[in-house]
Amino acid sequence: MELWFTEKQTDSFGITARIKRTLHTEQTEFQKLDMVETEQFGNMLILDGMVMTTQKDEFVYHEMVAHVPLFTHPNPENVLVVGGGDGGVIREVLKHPSVKKATLVEIDGKVIEYSKKYLPEIAGKLDDPRVEVKVDDGFMHIAQSENEYDVIMVDSTEPVGPAVNLFTKGFYAGIAKALKDDGIFVAQTDNPWFKADLIRTVQRDVREIFPITRLYIANIPTYPSGMWTFTMGSKKYDPLEVSEERFHDIETKYYTKQLHKACFVLPKFVEDLVK
Amino acid sequence: MELWFTEKQTDSFGITARIKRTLHTEQTEFQKLDMVETEQFGNMLILDGMVMTTQKDEFVYHEMVAHVPLFTHPNPENVLVVGGGDGGVIREVLKHPSVKKATLVEIDGKVIEYSKKYLPEIAGKLDDPRVEVKVDDGFMHIAQSENEYDVIMVDSTEPVGPAVNLFTKGFYAGIAKALKDDGIFVAQTDNPWFKADLIRTVQRDVREIFPITRLYIANIPTYPSGMWTFTMGSKKYDPLEVSEERFHDIETKYYTKQLHKACFVLPKFVEDLVK
Repeated sequence: MELWFTEKQTDSFGITARIKRTLHTEQTEFQKLDMVETEQFGNMLILDGMVMTTQKDEFVYHEMVAHVPLFTHPNPENVLVVGGGDGGVIREVLKHPSVKKATLVEIDGKVIEYSKKYLPEIAGKLDDPRVEVKVDDGFMHIAQSENEYDVIMVDSTEPVGPAVNLFTKGFYAGIAKALKDDGIFVAQTDNPWFKADLIRTVQRDVREIFPITRLYIANIPTYPSGMWTFTMGSKKYDPLEVSEERFHDIETKYYTKQLHKACFVLPKFVEDLVK
Repeated sequence: MELWFTEKQTDSFGITARIKRTLHTEQTEFQKLDMVETEQFGNMLILDGMVMTTQKDEFVYHEMVAHVPLFTHPNPENVLVVGGGDGGVIREVLKHPSVKKATLVEIDGKVIEYSKKYLPEIAGKLDDPRVEVKVDDGFMHIAQSENEYDVIMVDSTEPVGPAVNLFTKGFYAGIAKALKDDGIFVAQTDNPWFKADLIRTVQRDVREIFPITRLYIANIPTYPSGMWTFTMGSKKYDPLEVSEERFHDIETKYYTKQLHKACFVLPKFVEDLVK
């Protein structure tokens, strides 16, 4: 028997991956959680039918959401990750020696539990002493925080299900309040091929709140279209003006200091979306 | 009934696209040719089961294979396209006013015939007076050319079937001979996620023949992994040293003069492949 998992990324297009076996499947309090072992990409976490991360290509997303803001900020000490229960962003955050505390606020404890079990090289750093893990609503956590964080990363699912609040202007305003006066935030904002309107809307909303708003891109083969965008809002520091000496050596497979700036150079049709 | 076309891009991973209808299907002298109408990407040309081009995302490949070398060369007049029977590269080549002659050498006349019929906005410029279309073997054409072309683009299928000769060192040596003393060539060289060895081999071979060898990337959603690479071999001009005033205005949807240099900034794992 051949077993194939197919994600319809739109009504009429998708990816399909051959599965060695299903490792876990469960309806949690918040979403459908599946963990499968694929031939091509190793273990794969699927939430509500959508690929969240895989062992083979997870490094792209996690490095790019973390290192671009963390090298833009001159001294990130207190960092918040909203969502990201697989622990991959936290792992990258901890590569920065300036970071004294990293808080993870994940709404679904089951994501953490099964990532630790089946994605240990991604989730393994969640037990680091610098990390505090809260199983809680990220929207509420942000609403209750003020002038606290240097960098906030929003590592959410798509704007359906439990993450729908995380793509609203009210949420971005809350993030601005939760950040210090020179804080930076980054959110994953889907792909420009199938979700152009979403990117346009988020850019417009963030621009009304943050003086410096930027979009950058990375290639993630298991995500729709293979081209993923990240929206950055910054109160003071411009990622394009980071000086050479700011970068310290860091072990990565995707991010480089050259790419730190090149990832903001957008194809024409994407540039047009954020004008 | 729902009709889905699935391309297994590897033994265990692929894309799947919903089809409105099949427009044409034929075993040509060289390969299986299918033209289908997809919901997501418009009309799609498929050769030997592999997506070659679609109406919606064709601009990425065609712009990037053409404009990067053509803006690197200070005065491209005589241009050769090997393969590329859909006509998309030719269309982009003709946007450069310096080009006096563009020759297309496509081995399979059926690709030209059905591209003209079902992909008219891609193939429409094949009848331009500056264009000469030859239905012939590109390998043989290169072998018989000497000191003739300013720029050669190799727009081939994967290195299986009719294109297998187009990924050999002998072919690259022939290209060097067919180029003038300051000529440039570009070939599509697949993706770094599933075909790392191919990229490594081509880079090594081209580097032994051309003093300036470079790899650049673009995002193509219907191609394996969504990240496509192009290998450039140049006798004299470095794409990274093109001066600002060289660029003239050109209508594009992907290529920009900023991207001309940024597309050479590679993710770490791709950089490692070409070291």
